[in-house]
Amino acid sequence: MSYVVRPWALRDLKDVMRLIREAATFHKALDQVKTTPEALREDGFGTDPKFGCLVAEVPPDQRSKDGHTIVGYQFHYFRYCTWAGRIIFGEDLYVMPEFRGKGIGTSLLSQVAKLMLDHGGKQFRFMSANWNHPATALYKKLGAVDVTASDNWVIWHIEGQAVQEMAQRATQ
Amino acid sequence: MSYVVRPWALRDLKDVMRLIREAATFHKALDQVKTTPEALREDGFGTDPKFGCLVAEVPPDQRSKDGHTIVGYQFHYFRYCTWAGRIIFGEDLYVMPEFRGKGIGTSLLSQVAKLMLDHGGKQFRFMSANWNHPATALYKKLGAVDVTASDNWVIWHIEGQAVQEMAQRATQ
Repeated sequence: MSYVVRPWALRDLKDVMRLIREAATFHKALDQVKTTPEALREDGFGTDPKFGCLVAEVPPDQRSKDGHTIVGYQFHYFRYCTWAGRIIFGEDLYVMPEFRGKGIGTSLLSQVAKLMLDHGGKQFRFMSANWNHPATALYKKLGAVDVTASDNWVIWHIEGQAVQEMAQRATQ
Repeated sequence: MSYVVRPWALRDLKDVMRLIREAATFHKALDQVKTTPEALREDGFGTDPKFGCLVAEVPPDQRSKDGHTIVGYQFHYFRYCTWAGRIIFGEDLYVMPEFRGKGIGTSLLSQVAKLMLDHGGKQFRFMSANWNHPATALYKKLGAVDVTASDNWVIWHIEGQAVQEMAQRATQ
């Protein structure tokens, strides 16, 4: 099987949105997907894109059972760590089930690692679910370190009413 | 005790660097601090700052035992979540020990929440160490949810030799 990994283009918006929804479904979190193709277009293209996206594409004769040629994506942006300096964060990595085990995930991650080093970044960070054992095995094989275990980090989210109340406190 | 929370300025670089080092020492990770005042100036100011920083400042007559008036900081940047859209990430929050328990941490967080909402953001994310019980109590009180517990997320880092090897794979 052949495939290419390339930066996304406007024509990929619909496919990337489809894959975002597939990935969220895999995480049993489809109800949390509030983004839209319009929002992704507005924030991902133009003179000041808020994030980057790579897609994995197969030739038409190797398309998926339901006719898709964009079979995986990786979503990323630069961040800034007060300890390490410039780093890259991988928000999503997803490969359609029928295209797994062919190295596409590793190719997507490798391109992001290269992009990061080309821009003077020092560290590639990302998250996964602790029950996703194939992903965990791949990340360990690539040399990634689970810092929630090694350094006892916890991730917090504040949203909705709670964050509105916090912000109100700032203006009082 | 009175204090103000304000965006940092060039004159605060030395103080913020001091507090970054104090915070890393608290996390027993001073050896991981590779950033410099020069890097922070280059990446934090100018036409395209890579991050924002708020500082908490007390009047000169209430300065710390060792003479400092910048007694806390909060370091943040916008990120992009494929589910929630635009969000803000709080990289660091630190208040000097002798100024804790006075609401400075809550003020810093509240200003970031306001900043996020003002820019159309939907969620405020940050991390803490699971052994930092006073911080955990504060975050829970403010309505934050620990998603490492509720959603089983794990954070991975790849850096150094491992990330170099990944990137090499991309160019082969």
